[in-house]
Amino acid sequence: MPTPLRIGVAGLGTVGASLVRLIAEKGEGYAQRAGRPLSVTAVSARDRSKDRGLDLGTQEWFDDPVELAAKADIDLFVELVGGSEGAALEAVKAALSRGLPVVTANKALLAHHGVALAKLAARKNAVVAFEAAVAGGIPIIKTLREALRGNSVSRVYGILNGTCNYMLTRMEREGLSFGECLKEAQRLGYAEADPTFDIGGFDAAHKLTVLTSLAFGSEIDLESVFVEGIESIASEDIRAAADLGYRIKLLAVAQRTESGIEQRVHPAMVPASSAIAQVDGVTNAVAVDTDLLGSILLAGPGAGGNATASAVLSDILDIASGTRIATLGLPPANLVPYRRARMRAHEGGYYIRLSVHDRVGVFASIARRMAENAISLESIVQRKLAGHEADETAPVILITHETTEAAVRRAIDAISRDGHLSGEPRMIRIEPLD
Amino acid sequence: MPTPLRIGVAGLGTVGASLVRLIAEKGEGYAQRAGRPLSVTAVSARDRSKDRGLDLGTQEWFDDPVELAAKADIDLFVELVGGSEGAALEAVKAALSRGLPVVTANKALLAHHGVALAKLAARKNAVVAFEAAVAGGIPIIKTLREALRGNSVSRVYGILNGTCNYMLTRMEREGLSFGECLKEAQRLGYAEADPTFDIGGFDAAHKLTVLTSLAFGSEIDLESVFVEGIESIASEDIRAAADLGYRIKLLAVAQRTESGIEQRVHPAMVPASSAIAQVDGVTNAVAVDTDLLGSILLAGPGAGGNATASAVLSDILDIASGTRIATLGLPPANLVPYRRARMRAHEGGYYIRLSVHDRVGVFASIARRMAENAISLESIVQRKLAGHEADETAPVILITHETTEAAVRRAIDAISRDGHLSGEPRMIRIEPLD
Repeated sequence: MPTPLRIGVAGLGTVGASLVRLIAEKGEGYAQRAGRPLSVTAVSARDRSKDRGLDLGTQEWFDDPVELAAKADIDLFVELVGGSEGAALEAVKAALSRGLPVVTANKALLAHHGVALAKLAARKNAVVAFEAAVAGGIPIIKTLREALRGNSVSRVYGILNGTCNYMLTRMEREGLSFGECLKEAQRLGYAEADPTFDIGGFDAAHKLTVLTSLAFGSEIDLESVFVEGIESIASEDIRAAADLGYRIKLLAVAQRTESGIEQRVHPAMVPASSAIAQVDGVTNAVAVDTDLLGSILLAGPGAGGNATASAVLSDILDIASGTRIATLGLPPANLVPYRRARMRAHEGGYYIRLSVHDRVGVFASIARRMAENAISLESIVQRKLAGHEADETAPVILITHETTEAAVRRAIDAISRDGHLSGEPRMIRIEPLD
Repeated sequence: MPTPLRIGVAGLGTVGASLVRLIAEKGEGYAQRAGRPLSVTAVSARDRSKDRGLDLGTQEWFDDPVELAAKADIDLFVELVGGSEGAALEAVKAALSRGLPVVTANKALLAHHGVALAKLAARKNAVVAFEAAVAGGIPIIKTLREALRGNSVSRVYGILNGTCNYMLTRMEREGLSFGECLKEAQRLGYAEADPTFDIGGFDAAHKLTVLTSLAFGSEIDLESVFVEGIESIASEDIRAAADLGYRIKLLAVAQRTESGIEQRVHPAMVPASSAIAQVDGVTNAVAVDTDLLGSILLAGPGAGGNATASAVLSDILDIASGTRIATLGLPPANLVPYRRARMRAHEGGYYIRLSVHDRVGVFASIARRMAENAISLESIVQRKLAGHEADETAPVILITHETTEAAVRRAIDAISRDGHLSGEPRMIRIEPLD
């Protein structure tokens, strides 16, 4: 019998506790599949006395995860502490410095320090594995880093934040306002008390940077991501999208263009008949467009203790089996610097919703501003809302053919300056999907 | 620089030619990702003089793939000959006997000889990799064999045959009959001159046996698969499905039940709002239900030279990187015998379409036969078709609550014996999806 793989787990929250329990309960099956037994021999958590429903009698306990990583008698270090700095970063560095492979679920750590950690790992002949860091239990890291290695990727995009997708789904199905929906999501535990990180698009942006690096062989660059959250999505937009044959999703997109690589997180209109439009609730999905394959889509649970533990286990079992793939898919020296494509150069169709004062000449004026910016319109709809007959303002919805972000912004600015608008203009990008 | 991985390719059809071309064109990128260069050093094909658009000046040529496998100076053998017996089987055996890793796209070979080849590979410390054998470019083999190793699978199901899915999609969208659709598919090259292997469900059954083995750690058993093709699907069924909120797909399903594992390929009604219902045309999709993850879905191109070559390349690059996963996910000695769950014990809802003579008492008689077999009905619809007012027969559509296959068959037999039917009864299983 081969010797067991001795695992140190730092962080015994939901995922860590699931992991320790699963290895205890399913150890025999895992040993068969990995070719050697797994054994959690060291753990670290803040509160030693808390009841986690686990038998933790045999493991060595560390109060400090960094000490565990630096000193425990282990073959593999699992970082489930969280946070991009502090203990998580120090512990991962300490483990890699000893040449230990590291498994982490920490997207923030990778978004901020992924390249530095990949370099450290390469120097020490170790690896960092992080399937759980993006889209929970969906094997998108393995797919990009291994299965699609023969392909050139042109775009990777997905629904990477369950909170936002849950909220958009509820707004659509129940006709709730953004505010009502947020309260509900907070009550159900799908949104944090301070929801900014999720609904502002920042969580998705962190995850996107990792996918971008794997898809394009480039260094991770969090600062360059264009981020727009779902806060300004109104019920009217969701209804209008449905009427037009679209659904609204918070998409994270990395796309190769002539001027570089776009990284963008924003609400997007996707065709209602597309596969990604069917992804509802807290489910995540990632699609990859490549030269050889065309497009593939992966969908599944993006969060949850067991789903995340499943991804951590996948990494552990790979390492136990002897699999060694470079942390970011390439030797760090072969990663190319990230070349940013500016958002102003983004090309696509746009949905624009204007609240206009209902008077003679408004339409002509709007149409002229569009034409001045070389924007051709696919449709223009003015609709009085029921019960608003007596109102002096009217919503106007424009759908453009493919144009540039810069042109759309100039046109909207010009229309605003013309003084026809009674409220803030809204713009939602249309993501072209086959 | 590490030494190149010397590859022998037997079979230079669409996939083989794509593979050789890609390795020539993208070799540098592949070398970075795999950590060593790839080099096709030996090839075999029937016709040496055929123009394949490839520069084949430097490779050693073999007329016989078995000789290539047995004698060429290579580190890896790629089998793209096809067929479950003869040269493909002998060549793979010859390569494994030398301890060479083998990459194949050959579903029939695996369905018939997968366990024997896994055993031979294990004895020789080699592996057989076969991502391309199921669902083309979708990484379902890697997902089951590696990414989901921490999970227990309860069901794996999918759309594994592009010909059938194309035809069902066209029948639905264009209102074509099965016969019209088949002619069109043959004209477009989506169906063979003899289409039995595809439309009869046998191609999907071959692929399913491989997924079953990986999902449940069991031996491959092709004989036990219940197979029903799409030949008897009529336009009326597709219309009725749409009215009831379903779509009809040819599904391949392996499912753990109390009495064993069901392996079944048959047309199935799936909820129109489900992700798998959106999979149209020649696209394939596979979903996996597990204990930790809930459900994940993978969708993408199921065939085509480049998509299949992408999967073959993924296997080659894994082997070049040193990845070694047991052929069927477990050491062959640990595979359990396949324990068949009989189709008569299958539980689910059923759609039943009867053509009845339109006379007094028919409904009562049908309802009684259902009740006698303890089948409760969710709905019963009788509809006169437009233009059929003068006809003496009427279609009756029944949707049952969950019941057993045996009960449904008994009820239909009894109704047939009662003499009320003017045509063959039709039955389509409803696949429960979340």
